[in-house]
Amino acid sequence: MSEPSAPEMRWWGWGSDDRASALPEHAEALLRAELQTDGRRRAPVALEQLTLAPSRLKGAGRDVLARALGSDGVREDRLARVIHAAGKSYPDLVRVRSGQMTGAPDGVLYPSTPEQVQAVLTACAEARIAVVPFGGGTSVVGGVDPAAGEHSAVVALDLRGLAVLVSVDVDSLTAVVQAGMRGPALERELARWGLTLGHFPQSFEYVSVGGCVATRSAGQASTGYGRIDELVLGLRCCCPSGEIALPARPASAAGPDLRQLVVGSEGVLGVITEVSLRLHRRPETRRYEGLFFRSFTEGAQAFRHAVQEDLAPDIARLSDESETRLSLALAGREGLKARLGETYLGARGYAGGCLAIVGWEGTEADVDRRRAGALALLTRHGALRLGASPGHSWAESRFAGPYLRDELLDRRIMADTLETAAQWSDIEALHAAVASALKESLGERGTPPLVMCHISHLYESGASLYFTILARQEPEAEIEQWQAAKRAASEAIVARTATITHHHGIGRDHVPWLEAETGPVGLAALRAAKQALDPAGIMNPGKLLG
Amino acid sequence: MSEPSAPEMRWWGWGSDDRASALPEHAEALLRAELQTDGRRRAPVALEQLTLAPSRLKGAGRDVLARALGSDGVREDRLARVIHAAGKSYPDLVRVRSGQMTGAPDGVLYPSTPEQVQAVLTACAEARIAVVPFGGGTSVVGGVDPAAGEHSAVVALDLRGLAVLVSVDVDSLTAVVQAGMRGPALERELARWGLTLGHFPQSFEYVSVGGCVATRSAGQASTGYGRIDELVLGLRCCCPSGEIALPARPASAAGPDLRQLVVGSEGVLGVITEVSLRLHRRPETRRYEGLFFRSFTEGAQAFRHAVQEDLAPDIARLSDESETRLSLALAGREGLKARLGETYLGARGYAGGCLAIVGWEGTEADVDRRRAGALALLTRHGALRLGASPGHSWAESRFAGPYLRDELLDRRIMADTLETAAQWSDIEALHAAVASALKESLGERGTPPLVMCHISHLYESGASLYFTILARQEPEAEIEQWQAAKRAASEAIVARTATITHHHGIGRDHVPWLEAETGPVGLAALRAAKQALDPAGIMNPGKLLG
Repeated sequence: MSEPSAPEMRWWGWGSDDRASALPEHAEALLRAELQTDGRRRAPVALEQLTLAPSRLKGAGRDVLARALGSDGVREDRLARVIHAAGKSYPDLVRVRSGQMTGAPDGVLYPSTPEQVQAVLTACAEARIAVVPFGGGTSVVGGVDPAAGEHSAVVALDLRGLAVLVSVDVDSLTAVVQAGMRGPALERELARWGLTLGHFPQSFEYVSVGGCVATRSAGQASTGYGRIDELVLGLRCCCPSGEIALPARPASAAGPDLRQLVVGSEGVLGVITEVSLRLHRRPETRRYEGLFFRSFTEGAQAFRHAVQEDLAPDIARLSDESETRLSLALAGREGLKARLGETYLGARGYAGGCLAIVGWEGTEADVDRRRAGALALLTRHGALRLGASPGHSWAESRFAGPYLRDELLDRRIMADTLETAAQWSDIEALHAAVASALKESLGERGTPPLVMCHISHLYESGASLYFTILARQEPEAEIEQWQAAKRAASEAIVARTATITHHHGIGRDHVPWLEAETGPVGLAALRAAKQALDPAGIMNPGKLLG
Repeated sequence: MSEPSAPEMRWWGWGSDDRASALPEHAEALLRAELQTDGRRRAPVALEQLTLAPSRLKGAGRDVLARALGSDGVREDRLARVIHAAGKSYPDLVRVRSGQMTGAPDGVLYPSTPEQVQAVLTACAEARIAVVPFGGGTSVVGGVDPAAGEHSAVVALDLRGLAVLVSVDVDSLTAVVQAGMRGPALERELARWGLTLGHFPQSFEYVSVGGCVATRSAGQASTGYGRIDELVLGLRCCCPSGEIALPARPASAAGPDLRQLVVGSEGVLGVITEVSLRLHRRPETRRYEGLFFRSFTEGAQAFRHAVQEDLAPDIARLSDESETRLSLALAGREGLKARLGETYLGARGYAGGCLAIVGWEGTEADVDRRRAGALALLTRHGALRLGASPGHSWAESRFAGPYLRDELLDRRIMADTLETAAQWSDIEALHAAVASALKESLGERGTPPLVMCHISHLYESGASLYFTILARQEPEAEIEQWQAAKRAASEAIVARTATITHHHGIGRDHVPWLEAETGPVGLAALRAAKQALDPAGIMNPGKLLG
């Protein structure tokens, strides 16, 4: 089977051509003023202009792979190689749009069973071919960068052929799902059983289940449904040294949790082929709405009280002053800004404050009850209720960020996001430190940025911070510019012992800061586990463990 | 500092002499009839009758340890060695009561700082002395068995000197606690801050925080407060190759979760010295009460609906028919049986049914709300409400099991417990399979047992089963008898891919079944991590990884 149906993204950006979004005119004008861009555009180069190095798959290696997968299962054509040449990080897109295809994989493999995956890994370990597992290809941290490492060739292992809902256990609210299944397909299948996984990262439309698990992802509703690491009850992972198969178990005290060694392993230990997931009943209703707080501090305190009193909404986002200002401005005359009116907010003492989106999903009765409790608490802690309209706006554009980024890159605007998490007692200081680091590092280069942030997930002990950075691109130095900002933000994060990533993963881009997270001894333990599972070091070279 | 104050258990059983419980006369008569015992007693041998092998600590090893800890920090006297010679498993107690002290450690170390722990491990790795971390000493699976493995000597590392509440973060509801702190001391300290950990295993009175974390324990209220693995946000673990220090983080996507590699590591990777824990506000009120179901099946279904509709009580125990019958009979004329009356239950169709204990903890308002919702659901699914009295009885005796076991051993009755967990769809079949295995294996030996079981923890996807086994001891073959029952039950558990342990841990006794849980490849990864952290293999030989 070569390429079963799964949505194919355009190679140079997000989505497909028919789903492209357009930047509204007033937004373009606003950004031009704020970022001092000149409005010139730069389109990606054409596919036929790309120069690809010849495939380095040699006769013997190619033969053994074709034996494992059939000749349809191994592709070396231009389009397959280009599509698998990069993920969707900002530096990936900068390189790809400019036609830098030096890193394309030598071939692309399309297995359709876990057994074929195992056979491929055995073959590649023998032939010393590096393997990059490829799910939805949505990594924003270089997680599918096709690096050969010390090997002579590298292949992408595309998991779209493993896309079956294997079984559903309605009594236990669990399902077994093949790793290549995409988010929307899984939700469609589960809907027939009256169930949902409830996992909706911004990349939902393209993301694969296995990719979510391998990168320890969180979705927009994870405050309610739980992070993917809380939803994985079992899994199968093919490693070069053999398969780890852990059946679904609700809980166990049988030693260290092996599931949590594979979850987040980003393809460097093996290929996740199947996952047992905890599900929820499909919600009867979804209620999203807007709140306003006088300040980020006030909103954060209110959210803290809510989650610590077991009244957290399922979706809880709190924009800081900067993100709120830009959101309102971009919404424009027809949008929230017009409806709210600055006089409305000003008269109530909320001018210059912060927008929050809160949402509940579940049965009508459950949503009514939880929403009433939460809104009572949040208003007690300063929230001004804005009604359903901001919630609808958010829901309509909840997956729009990556489309918008393509539009910004077209306009020579650097657009990136980064995220972290910390205890409540450190949230404000961390917010200030990262924002300062970004502003200073980009300001010094003459490209002062817009730095925006929101709290995106709540925990009893803390919260995540999600930053968006926009700046005029530095011509001919786009990557260096990005690196400087990335380095500054990352150093600020680890200096406060916050996590280098709350849900994007380590990939290639966060490797320099993993040791700050694990310490040298912890890192040595992870490397030892890798050595046992992947003695030839063929799995996803350069990611996670460096 | 030699031996800071921490409760010392009697060496041959549970608790201290002044806390000994007595078996009521009618209970003794009942058990004699049910188990066909002859009433003869057998007391443990006297301390002075024990024969200990001379300590194998040699001059050089002893010197280096004394240098690290001061001479007060190293003890080789009889009492110290005897107290650390075993945990509290059934085979431990059988051996110890009969005076078999061959396995006593050669010495006992009392560090009082993490730095001393690190120094001791370095010294022991050089001197090739095995180290058994010792918290509360409450393991029921042989977890503190002082095995030297391939080394020339073995020391117990008693953590009672690391018993400080290091810091509390009231905003984040977290605390940093030294590993040797005991359960009651921690709750006392936290109460001053208006906080609780909410972790109450049956061993609560003696358990250490580090021991709970190292064994991945669950407490009686963990359905509400969460298992210890859900409460650990960070930790410090001294390994022979260096320290793993992971600060508290609410969540992270930075690769595999190293915390979950150390949690449950049972001292084979290193010594946990400090833990960052997620806390709850101290409850204003506690409400425990009794319910009755027509059958275990009915009760299990009701509990399943409760947890899947987010209405699980914080404490939820459902005894099967056998445990209910014996509980009511043991409660006697003054107890629940008399108050309920068989006619009362019979008239309502509940004769021969199952007792459940449910409990809520929190603010008055929160408990009222959650209790009302849960009781409405549970009665809709068949529950008969018995009021607060059975709840009080349970709460009064919630830590009594281990005291009672000493009384039973005195009367030559084998008394052991074992536990597992599975998905809801497999709970009944697992319950039947394990009970049958126990009855058959002990019946074949001419000692037909009483096998009782309760559901002790609820999860959306499944539940735990906690079995109690009572049988007349087989004279001169007590250990073989126990081994036969253990083997039969364990084989029945792994045959159904249920977990070999839900909260007791692997220790020494479950080692033969760990590979059924992890598979050979998973086990190889854990062994590789151990090799990296403990290259000389001095840490807790024979436990967990065998």
